[in-house]
Amino acid sequence: MTILKVDMSEKKVTRQPVPEDKIVGGRAMVDYLVTEYGLPTAHPLSKESVFVVAPGLLAGTGAPQSGRLSIGGKSPLTGGIKEANSGGTAAHKLGRLGIRGIMVEGRSGEWQILKIDTNGAKFEPAGAIVGLKNYEACEKLRQMYGAKCGIIIIGPAGEMKLANSTVAVTDPDGNPARHAARGGLGAVMGAKGLKAIVIDDEGCGVRKPVDEENFKSAAKSLTDAIQNGPFTQALHTLGTAIFVDADNGRGSLPTNNHRLGSFDKSNNINATKFVEMVKARNGSMGHGCMAGCVVRCSSVFHDASKNFITAALEYETIGMLGSNLGIDDLDAIARMDRKCDDLGIDTIELGCTIGILNDVGLFEFGDAAKAEALIDEIAKGTPMGRILGSGVVGTARAFGIDRVPAVKGLGIPAHAARSSKGWAVTYATSPQGADHTAGAVMEEPLSPKGQAERSRLSQIGMAAFDATGICLFTFLGPAPQLIVPAINSLYGISWTVEDYLEMGKEMLRQERGFNAKAGIGPGADRIPDWMRVEPLPPTNALFDVPQEDIDSVFNF
Amino acid sequence: MTILKVDMSEKKVTRQPVPEDKIVGGRAMVDYLVTEYGLPTAHPLSKESVFVVAPGLLAGTGAPQSGRLSIGGKSPLTGGIKEANSGGTAAHKLGRLGIRGIMVEGRSGEWQILKIDTNGAKFEPAGAIVGLKNYEACEKLRQMYGAKCGIIIIGPAGEMKLANSTVAVTDPDGNPARHAARGGLGAVMGAKGLKAIVIDDEGCGVRKPVDEENFKSAAKSLTDAIQNGPFTQALHTLGTAIFVDADNGRGSLPTNNHRLGSFDKSNNINATKFVEMVKARNGSMGHGCMAGCVVRCSSVFHDASKNFITAALEYETIGMLGSNLGIDDLDAIARMDRKCDDLGIDTIELGCTIGILNDVGLFEFGDAAKAEALIDEIAKGTPMGRILGSGVVGTARAFGIDRVPAVKGLGIPAHAARSSKGWAVTYATSPQGADHTAGAVMEEPLSPKGQAERSRLSQIGMAAFDATGICLFTFLGPAPQLIVPAINSLYGISWTVEDYLEMGKEMLRQERGFNAKAGIGPGADRIPDWMRVEPLPPTNALFDVPQEDIDSVFNF
Repeated sequence: MTILKVDMSEKKVTRQPVPEDKIVGGRAMVDYLVTEYGLPTAHPLSKESVFVVAPGLLAGTGAPQSGRLSIGGKSPLTGGIKEANSGGTAAHKLGRLGIRGIMVEGRSGEWQILKIDTNGAKFEPAGAIVGLKNYEACEKLRQMYGAKCGIIIIGPAGEMKLANSTVAVTDPDGNPARHAARGGLGAVMGAKGLKAIVIDDEGCGVRKPVDEENFKSAAKSLTDAIQNGPFTQALHTLGTAIFVDADNGRGSLPTNNHRLGSFDKSNNINATKFVEMVKARNGSMGHGCMAGCVVRCSSVFHDASKNFITAALEYETIGMLGSNLGIDDLDAIARMDRKCDDLGIDTIELGCTIGILNDVGLFEFGDAAKAEALIDEIAKGTPMGRILGSGVVGTARAFGIDRVPAVKGLGIPAHAARSSKGWAVTYATSPQGADHTAGAVMEEPLSPKGQAERSRLSQIGMAAFDATGICLFTFLGPAPQLIVPAINSLYGISWTVEDYLEMGKEMLRQERGFNAKAGIGPGADRIPDWMRVEPLPPTNALFDVPQEDIDSVFNF
Repeated sequence: MTILKVDMSEKKVTRQPVPEDKIVGGRAMVDYLVTEYGLPTAHPLSKESVFVVAPGLLAGTGAPQSGRLSIGGKSPLTGGIKEANSGGTAAHKLGRLGIRGIMVEGRSGEWQILKIDTNGAKFEPAGAIVGLKNYEACEKLRQMYGAKCGIIIIGPAGEMKLANSTVAVTDPDGNPARHAARGGLGAVMGAKGLKAIVIDDEGCGVRKPVDEENFKSAAKSLTDAIQNGPFTQALHTLGTAIFVDADNGRGSLPTNNHRLGSFDKSNNINATKFVEMVKARNGSMGHGCMAGCVVRCSSVFHDASKNFITAALEYETIGMLGSNLGIDDLDAIARMDRKCDDLGIDTIELGCTIGILNDVGLFEFGDAAKAEALIDEIAKGTPMGRILGSGVVGTARAFGIDRVPAVKGLGIPAHAARSSKGWAVTYATSPQGADHTAGAVMEEPLSPKGQAERSRLSQIGMAAFDATGICLFTFLGPAPQLIVPAINSLYGISWTVEDYLEMGKEMLRQERGFNAKAGIGPGADRIPDWMRVEPLPPTNALFDVPQEDIDSVFNF
């Protein structure tokens, strides 16, 4: 098992064995490589900045739903360390090729493709796909390299080095519909001159565990647990859009630029409507975005003429480009999602960004045509597009807007902070910024009590979980006792649950240490002030978790 | 002596006596009011943010050259506390009116003028001047309120709440040529709905010192010291443009986007050329920007047809809009200065901003017409103008530029960091960001040794000095023993030099404390990484002050 060190300046790839004591993968590999080799003071887009690709600890094995791919570096949005992960086919392929991490340094003057297969890794000129949108680029790459390759790619947004740009990963259909979306890591990849990584694992078998017998039974237990998970059936049948009704019902569906917590037209964008439209148009529900997926919560969305618009139109996108913009038209939302997937733009950040334009009269809630036109500005690379592509904080700065739904430069996602108070403590304190995957807290969403402790436990558990490569929608995060046996038998080690959770704590320490060196102090662990004074209808919740509680989150 | 508390939301002004133990003025008053009443976590442009106007401790007296006006608040550029000061006539008038500080809170929906005179302070609608550029607005205000009024005003940039916008102060000719320029405080004033403060001190005499006799002799000593100052004669005769040759000679004149430290066409923008042009066109040298000025280093610059273009075309502007853009045409630089004064844009920040556009092919060095056209974009409020008006860091973000000459969000001024190493330690560590007035260090500019200590002493001395209202160009900063007697006799106190310097230390502590609460940690005390690896011709200096030294600056 090795780490590929990719020097873009010298066009050189070297293999470095993973240190024996480093049982790290996914987000933990990002944390290890970025804190060990990255310069916290370097500009995120500089040659000295480090860009990391890392499959999870269980990648390439038969463990269920373990093909999440972590992407990492210093975020152009937060100025701190960032990991974003994605489904798709790439992580398992890397795992089978014995690659535990890819660390990209330097910068190439000409756009490059990095081709990885059993023969090794080599550069190829990216001329044929530079400037192309993700879908078209991936189609060409499949023609060039074979339909079975996994592709990690940036779109025009990443090429433009826009702060809100994603890294896309192809799904089993070859579509670049899965995105390591948050934090602008597409710009970091773009700044290296790296347009795409193409992975061909032809000739590789499944990874061989050290203790095959026990691994098999551990994997079986994981599969059983996922199959019996609380949301598995609903997610499989109805998709992630089930959260529309859930969040709307408890007043935490961001609506009209985070001014409301429920949307009077939510029935037009909820799972019932979603499934009805998908089925009527010969789209499909129950798609898996990776091999070995048990839940299969994804879908393929067609337009009224039954032509493909987008895959993986998920809850966060429906919330942030839908209700948060007052838009109740799933067709329009699907088109926007496709545009964002094609450009490589994070829909959460963009939803926050377009939303605040309402404050300066540049966007009316519900105006889907205008929202689509604004995304087209990004595609054209106009100054307006560049402002929007800079994310919600950059856009607020350009237009003098002071009511900004963001923490540490990252837009607040589709679980409203004021009425999801535990989750909001995570938004406030996570070294990752206001990231919805950094440590969800569902309990007593309207109570300020006990939320700091809940967030602490959730962030520790989630950090460790993000190292495994297992998908969040397995809802296995709170069940480390099921995960640890799989890691132990795969690597031939004997972690306890405490060891596993200690990994999560150490990751958070590394991330906070990096951020401190980058100039981000603990004073940045704050929910925007206005959320403490502006009530969020219909619950009229204020964010009222005491600051002392928030400041205690990292007491471990 | 009172503080005016101005509630823009309620349109209410209340007077609050200055606490007896608070001998604070200028930057010290900013620090007191912003840390006492401001919320470090509030958005700089929010209602909860505090905007401060404060004359220095000696304002309104006969002490020489003591009419600097401090403007303060939370900076939209740095996200930390900011004070910027300016000459002009307003500070002395406020001093004579017995006003030691103005603290503006809340927000008015309609643009307001605050009129202050011996009858008190009242609001008047600003309709007649909203949208006007500074020169035209001030002309109207002089017609409305009398030619002798002092005016504090924001231009269209501040109205647009652009992060790089200034607060202008009228000079004795009534021209808005003096600017509290750095840190975007014009946007903070604009966010309050306050277009201008008009000050009429008709009927007020000079402030009466507690100990008149000793004050008189202290003032006399100050005057003598200024008259015999090392640069007084040169500044009076040749203006601040003398620094062009000085900085160029030692390789610290930023040229071509901080790529060079000297400019091969510096003879076209130096003091010799400047004075020659001014004289040939019936402009004038030796202007004072405030009553009681001994140095009188300012000037009035005419075009070839002998028509007024601008007043106060100073060194920092010549460096940042001249050599840093490769422009050697003083007429063009003067026109740009006028445009910036009219809009209310900081020329230092703008020079950094336009400079970096060269990295993405949007600006060629030496193209004065393009630079002027870019300023016009700001005037028009186009998206491109809004990007440029966001400052160098905002512009870098929009265009994906990673070589950014800024510290804590503030552009690096016209004394190149790499070849002014002591000064650069101040840029790196000052809680004010890369501000040229936060603590100059001239000694051994190319040596890394001893610079942290020099910067420490200079920052402490300069903080205290910024409380007095005395102009930097008296070069009295290093002579507190001359300043303290004036303060003592004016206020009837008995400070020692140590007490005075302790004020400076306390100010720095307050400022750093505010910044920490705002999320800015000590890790932000860094010169951009690239300045440690990219040599600056012709000296080929690198910034090489050890980081341990830098981290020791605030050990006091």
